[in-house]
Amino acid sequence: MSLTTDVTATLAVLRAHVADLHAELTRNGLVAWTAGNVSARVPGQDLMVIKPSGVSYDDLSAETMVVTDLHGVLVEGDRAPSSDTAAHAYVYRHLPEVGGVVHTHSTYATAWAARGEAIPCVLTMIADEFGGDIPVGPFALIGDESIGEGIVATLRSSRSKAVLMQNHGPFTVGKDARAAVKAAVLLEDVARTVHVARQLGDTIPIAQSHVDSLYDRYQNVYGQQPATTPSTLGSSS
Amino acid sequence: MSLTTDVTATLAVLRAHVADLHAELTRNGLVAWTAGNVSARVPGQDLMVIKPSGVSYDDLSAETMVVTDLHGVLVEGDRAPSSDTAAHAYVYRHLPEVGGVVHTHSTYATAWAARGEAIPCVLTMIADEFGGDIPVGPFALIGDESIGEGIVATLRSSRSKAVLMQNHGPFTVGKDARAAVKAAVLLEDVARTVHVARQLGDTIPIAQSHVDSLYDRYQNVYGQQPATTPSTLGSSS
Amino acid sequence: MSLTTDVTATLAVLRAHVADLHAELTRNGLVAWTAGNVSARVPGQDLMVIKPSGVSYDDLSAETMVVTDLHGVLVEGDRAPSSDTAAHAYVYRHLPEVGGVVHTHSTYATAWAARGEAIPCVLTMIADEFGGDIPVGPFALIGDESIGEGIVATLRSSRSKAVLMQNHGPFTVGKDARAAVKAAVLLEDVARTVHVARQLGDTIPIAQSHVDSLYDRYQNVYGQQPATTPSTLGSSS
Amino acid sequence: MSLTTDVTATLAVLRAHVADLHAELTRNGLVAWTAGNVSARVPGQDLMVIKPSGVSYDDLSAETMVVTDLHGVLVEGDRAPSSDTAAHAYVYRHLPEVGGVVHTHSTYATAWAARGEAIPCVLTMIADEFGGDIPVGPFALIGDESIGEGIVATLRSSRSKAVLMQNHGPFTVGKDARAAVKAAVLLEDVARTVHVARQLGDTIPIAQSHVDSLYDRYQNVYGQQPATTPSTLGSSS
Repeated sequence: MSLTTDVTATLAVLRAHVADLHAELTRNGLVAWTAGNVSARVPGQDLMVIKPSGVSYDDLSAETMVVTDLHGVLVEGDRAPSSDTAAHAYVYRHLPEVGGVVHTHSTYATAWAARGEAIPCVLTMIADEFGGDIPVGPFALIGDESIGEGIVATLRSSRSKAVLMQNHGPFTVGKDARAAVKAAVLLEDVARTVHVARQLGDTIPIAQSHVDSLYDRYQNVYGQQPATTPSTLGSSS
Repeated sequence: MSLTTDVTATLAVLRAHVADLHAELTRNGLVAWTAGNVSARVPGQDLMVIKPSGVSYDDLSAETMVVTDLHGVLVEGDRAPSSDTAAHAYVYRHLPEVGGVVHTHSTYATAWAARGEAIPCVLTMIADEFGGDIPVGPFALIGDESIGEGIVATLRSSRSKAVLMQNHGPFTVGKDARAAVKAAVLLEDVARTVHVARQLGDTIPIAQSHVDSLYDRYQNVYGQQPATTPSTLGSSS
Repeated sequence: MSLTTDVTATLAVLRAHVADLHAELTRNGLVAWTAGNVSARVPGQDLMVIKPSGVSYDDLSAETMVVTDLHGVLVEGDRAPSSDTAAHAYVYRHLPEVGGVVHTHSTYATAWAARGEAIPCVLTMIADEFGGDIPVGPFALIGDESIGEGIVATLRSSRSKAVLMQNHGPFTVGKDARAAVKAAVLLEDVARTVHVARQLGDTIPIAQSHVDSLYDRYQNVYGQQPATTPSTLGSSS
Repeated sequence: MSLTTDVTATLAVLRAHVADLHAELTRNGLVAWTAGNVSARVPGQDLMVIKPSGVSYDDLSAETMVVTDLHGVLVEGDRAPSSDTAAHAYVYRHLPEVGGVVHTHSTYATAWAARGEAIPCVLTMIADEFGGDIPVGPFALIGDESIGEGIVATLRSSRSKAVLMQNHGPFTVGKDARAAVKAAVLLEDVARTVHVARQLGDTIPIAQSHVDSLYDRYQNVYGQQPATTPSTLGSSS
C-alpha cells in the first residue's frame, strides 16, 4: 500500500498528536505501566494511528506510533501494533462517526465492569457527557472480533460514548482522539464519584426529562466550538 | 460599556490572579478536564472576572480570562464565559460581602451531594472553616437563575461558605477569590475525611458550644492578617 | 532574650531544616492548604523552631520560620507562630527525649480520630514503628494547655510515637524533627492500609510476643545508624 | 572475594539500573518513606545488587547500591544491605529462573495480606499477568529464613509472580528486575480495582478455561519481544 504526499503529512501530524494524548492518560491516573491505548482514524482513509504494543509511555513519540489499516494490518511503523488493535479497528469499520478510540483499565470504571453493573446517571456530569447510564458490554476474549462486536453492539444501544467491558475495562469513543480521551477522563471521574456516593447510602435519581435536557444542552451549547452539524458524539472538545 | 484607566489596571491584575488560582484546583485534585471554575468580583464595579467556557487549564492565562457584568453579559474578552457564569453572577448580585466564587465537581463533596446529605460537623477543621454542618442545596437545571437562587438561599440559612448542590457538585464563596479557593480545597478535604470515617462506623459529634467556640476563634484569630472588620466570611487567607 | 553566636548559627541551620521538612508533608499528601506544621527543639536550649501561622507552604523558607521559647513566646521572627504552638511547647516541656513534633490532619489518621478508635497493630510496619496499637487522645479545645496535656498523657501510656487527637487529627513525635516527620508519613500509610483492610472483613491479629520482637529489632537494628543508647523514640531516621 | 573485570562492568550497569527502578516504586505510589526495595541477580554469578538499608529514595544512586552474595553477605558497597536482604537471597538460591525481586508495603496489596485473603482472578489483567488468584503466604518474622521460605513455597504452588505475605506486604518476582517491578505495579493496580469492585457487591468470576487462555496468550504473544524459550515467568517487559 503506497500513500500520497498529503496522507503522509496528515499521518505525521496525527502520530505526534496521538503520542501526546497518551500523556493525558498518565496525568489523569488512568493507566498503570503500559495498560492503555489511544487511536485516531486517519480522516478520509481506511487507516488508523495507534500505540505500539508493550512500549512504556515514557518511550512513546510520533516515531514509535504505528499505522494500520482498518483490519489491523501494519502499514507504517517498525513495531507490532497494540494487542487491542483489532477492537479499535472493528469500531472504526462499524461506526463511521467515530474518529478516536481509547482503552484503559482505570480503577473505578473497571470495578463497575468487574461487577457487571452499569453506572447510574445520578450526576449532572453524567447526563451532560454520557446522556444516561453508562452501559456494560459482554465478557469477550482477546484474539478475534468478539471485543469489537461487544463494544459496537453496546454503544449502539445507548447514547453513551463509553462502554464498560465486563471483567476487563472501559472503551470510550469520540468524534476525534481528543474527545475520546476526554470521555475516558470524565468516565473515571464519575465512576469514582458514584462509587463513593454509593458506599454510604442510596443516591438520588435524576428524572429522565432532566437528563435529556442536560444532554441536549451540553452537546449543543457548551464550549467554544458549537457543533455545526448535529452528532450523537457531541461537540465538546 | 467603556472602562476607566484605573479599572483597566485592576482588571489586568485580577485576570492574572484568577487564571493562577485555577492551578490550585488542579494541584489539589479538585477538577477533571475543564470541569471547574473560579471567579472574582471586580471591587467597586458591577463586574466579575471568570474562566472562559471549555478551555483546558493548561491554556488559561490572564489573556484568556473574560470579564462580564453581574448579569453574565460579556464586557471584555474573545471567548464565551463559563457555562456557570449565571450562577456566579447571581451570587455576586445577592451577597455583597462575597468577592470570590468557586465551582468544582470534586469527588467526595459531589458524592455527599449525590446522596443529598449534609456533611456533619465532626472535625475541628469543619467547625473552624465552615462553622457547622455543610448544607445541601436543591437540584437545579442549568440555563436560568435556578442554580444561583439555590446557592444563595442555602448559604443564607447557614454559616457555611460551601453548599453542596444536589446531584451536581459544590460551590464555595469567600471575601475574595483566594478565600473561595481555600474553602473549596478544605471542603474536599473534610468531605473525604468524614466519608472515610463513616465507612467503618459512627463518628463522635462535637458539642454545639465547642463548634461555636472553634468557629469564633478561627474567624478572628487565625493567620497573619486578622480581619479589621467583622465578616461572616471570615478573615483566613 | 539575647542569643549567643553559637545558638544563632544553630538556629540558622534548624530554620532551614524545619522549612524543608514541610515539603515532605505536601509530597506525602498529609496536608491541605496550610493545615499542618513541623517544629524542632533547639538542642540544649529552651527554644523551638516552628512554622508561622497561616502561611502557604510555597512561601515557607528559613527566613519565614519563627523561634519561640517553650511557652510559645516569640523570640525570633516577624510573624505569629503557628496556632498549634502551645501544644508543641507543652510536649517539649514535658517529654525531654522529644526533639521534633509534627501535627497534620492527614485523611486516614484523622478518620480514625473522628470515630475515636485506635489503629490496631495488624501490620508488621505498625509493630516496627509504633510498637503496638496507635492510641486516641481526648477531645480538647485549642487556646490553652488542653491539647498538650492530652498528647503527653496519651504518649506516656504507650510505646507509640503517634497519638490521634479525637475529632481533630494526629500529632507525632521523634528524637528530632525528621524522625517525627517519618512517623507522620508512616502513620498515614498504616492508617490507610488498615482502613482499607477492614472495609472488606476482619484483619488477622499479630501475637503480642511477635509485636515485641518486631519493635525491639526495628528500634535497634534497622537503618545505617544503630542507636548507641536505647531510646523509647527509636533510632530509625 | 575478588571480581573479574567483566563482572565489575556488569555490576556498574546493574547498580545504576536497580537504583533507577526504585524511582518506579515512588512514581507508582507503592512506597512510603524507605519501605520498599528492588534487587537484581547478577547473571551467571552467585551475587545480587540490592538497596542499602534505611536510605531515602532521593539519595539512591548507582554508588549507594550494595552487592551481596546469595546468603546476604556484603561483597561491595559501604552500607548495610536492606533489612530484607535475607528474603531476596533465599528466593535467588531456590528459584533459578528468577532474575529480580521487589518488596513493598503497597496499600491495597497489603490490605488483602492483613486479612490473609487471596486476590481472586476476576479481571482479565489478573489472568494475563498472574495466571489466576494471587496467593497469600504465611506470617513470618524477619531475622532468619522464614520469610524467604514462605515466599518460595507459595510461589511454587501457583503461576503467580506475586505473593501477599500475611500481615506484612507483597513480594514479586520476574525474569529480571524490571519484570519484577512491573509485577509490583500491576499487583497494586489489580489489588485496588478488585477491592473497589467488592466494596459494592459481588464480582463476576472468569471461567478457568478463559483464565488459562488469557494467561497463555499474554505470556507468549504480548509486547515487542516474544519469549524465545517458554518460561513460567513470562516474557512481558
